Amino acid sequence: MSERFQVLAKDGLARAGALATAHGPVETPVFMPVGTQATVKSLSSADLEALGARIILANTYHLAMRPGHELIRGLGGLHGFMAWPGAILTDSGGFQVFSHSGRRAIDEDGVTFQSHVDGSPQRLTPESAMAIQAALGSDIAMAFDECPPSDADPGALAKAMERTTRWARRCLTTLAAPGQLRFGIVQGGTSLPMREAHLAEMAGLPFDGLALGGLSVGEPPEVMHEVVAHVAPRMPADRPRYLMGVGRPQDLLAGIAAGIDMFDCVMPTRNARNGHLFVPAGHLNIANTRYRSDPEPIDSACPCEACRRYSRAYLAHLFRAKEILYYRLATLHNLQYYLNFVRGARQAILDGRFADYAAERRALGEGGE
Amino acid sequence: MSERFQVLAKDGLARAGALATAHGPVETPVFMPVGTQATVKSLSSADLEALGARIILANTYHLAMRPGHELIRGLGGLHGFMAWPGAILTDSGGFQVFSHSGRRAIDEDGVTFQSHVDGSPQRLTPESAMAIQAALGSDIAMAFDECPPSDADPGALAKAMERTTRWARRCLTTLAAPGQLRFGIVQGGTSLPMREAHLAEMAGLPFDGLALGGLSVGEPPEVMHEVVAHVAPRMPADRPRYLMGVGRPQDLLAGIAAGIDMFDCVMPTRNARNGHLFVPAGHLNIANTRYRSDPEPIDSACPCEACRRYSRAYLAHLFRAKEILYYRLATLHNLQYYLNFVRGARQAILDGRFADYAAERRALGEGGE
Repeated sequence: MSERFQVLAKDGLARAGALATAHGPVETPVFMPVGTQATVKSLSSADLEALGARIILANTYHLAMRPGHELIRGLGGLHGFMAWPGAILTDSGGFQVFSHSGRRAIDEDGVTFQSHVDGSPQRLTPESAMAIQAALGSDIAMAFDECPPSDADPGALAKAMERTTRWARRCLTTLAAPGQLRFGIVQGGTSLPMREAHLAEMAGLPFDGLALGGLSVGEPPEVMHEVVAHVAPRMPADRPRYLMGVGRPQDLLAGIAAGIDMFDCVMPTRNARNGHLFVPAGHLNIANTRYRSDPEPIDSACPCEACRRYSRAYLAHLFRAKEILYYRLATLHNLQYYLNFVRGARQAILDGRFADYAAERRALGEGGE
Repeated sequence: MSERFQVLAKDGLARAGALATAHGPVETPVFMPVGTQATVKSLSSADLEALGARIILANTYHLAMRPGHELIRGLGGLHGFMAWPGAILTDSGGFQVFSHSGRRAIDEDGVTFQSHVDGSPQRLTPESAMAIQAALGSDIAMAFDECPPSDADPGALAKAMERTTRWARRCLTTLAAPGQLRFGIVQGGTSLPMREAHLAEMAGLPFDGLALGGLSVGEPPEVMHEVVAHVAPRMPADRPRYLMGVGRPQDLLAGIAAGIDMFDCVMPTRNARNGHLFVPAGHLNIANTRYRSDPEPIDSACPCEACRRYSRAYLAHLFRAKEILYYRLATLHNLQYYLNFVRGARQAILDGRFADYAAERRALGEGGE
């Protein structure tokens, strides 16, 4: 396992590493833009290349429902389908099935649910979730886990944890795509003892990396930070550590400080579409009237196309007019911000000044509207 | 006037020319993509450059309502606002005011109407329409005309024509932006004698070019072709001739054959968003199930980003999933098709084989769904 992942430098608990995937190396820590339906919303794969993205996330559940994983397999897998030469991580579909589907029924074998596209009955099991990911041909496949609701009582949490372990073993018995890595998911809610217990189980399985699931699902950020600070340093040091679905820039700093290597979140892309643009001093809301005639770019130091070429005034106009171009420019900017933010953290770790970097960014980030 | 426009070659009645604008030369015949709200829907100015577009159209009415022409003037005019280095033609706002506004009242001085953005009362006169276009800083400003409905009776048509002439004279008394050209608009509905009469009036005014307005507003295409075939060759030969709001590829061929130099139409951009993609054999409807697993590009000979990089299957998926990227890729393709179609016509005129080109394209274009 460890020959695929190397820790190149440590600075406190923070790590700078490199993960070899079937579609090239990924420098860590890394932020993965979310491409739910085989496109990072509003962006082309050329746009992602221009941003310097090396790995993106795609959603197994959405793609299995539409257009279907066998169709994608026939078109060269996700890489061929979306013409993306970089790495792709697919989630297992579990999170969507557990949180987004209306009616669903869980049994020991798997989950029965309704398609969000056409309402048809569907079923996912550990084996089928991995088979779908093999058909998609992702570089990293996630194990199919049971995601308990954020308000689950300790008994339900423990049951979900135990089932996740049994399902993880079943995931490992399936055929992977060529070169495909597999990550297990550590559950346990916000209980530190349960997290430790589940980590001990999962660390013993031959996954290529481990993820923390079931966080950033409604608990206060400080609680999430506490869990990450406690659990991340206890995760196997020779394998990548992935904090799923997190988060705000300050959450990334907290995760990196605790030794997390990988992140994904819809925040930069979703917020962009809502007018929330990240800047070093926090963020700006492009809907604010003050930007209507502002000739400055979003961030004069940002190298993205939106900042190189357009004013806040133009973006404010496009936003008000609901022009499609707004969504692309805003998404380009927010992803550039996130990618550069994490690249900056990586360089700081390599330079042995991560604490200073984090302090500077936290101090700056107190601004915003 | 004529030093700004040169006819470089003639082939039958078709002309290949060059129009010098304040933002560079424009080779004619030319198709102008429509950028209603200071963006060709879904495209950036870099996208337009990549397509080889040299001139686009923007809508005076929409921009005056939102974000406002004085705001745009303060940000460097339309060119600065949308970061577009090429040429821009602005319409006069007349067409929108006459056809799209709910309540409106016409008098000899101008038109009172309600804003589509906030319902506020607004007024456009020949003088204010030209002043707005001067503030926008377009390269070509259109005279403010009265656009009669397509079913207007001869009496109403004649009245609108006469008023358009009086308004055209008033337009010419206003200050233009530096280097801004001005085009007059010939009305007269589908009546050849009225078109001739109005042309005689307008040709006597010192406009830099003349346009045919009030066509492609509901009349049968053959009627429109008949009017264009009759009137275009009678328009001043030393000035550019612009057929407003036209049209389908076969309409462009008919216009070019009659000596038209400039076209604009929302068809390639609007149809793209509806799934209608132009190909040499006619068009394909990306919603058709046959494309769901089709690994071929829209058109393997097309140089646009959509065709260079993506399959019909991927576009069909994006279209079904209503992904923003679909709109951009489809728009890039349809505009590339239109621009290359008209560039091909220009080259054919220069080569003295326009009739063959038109026949070949017409024969091909009989396909489609």
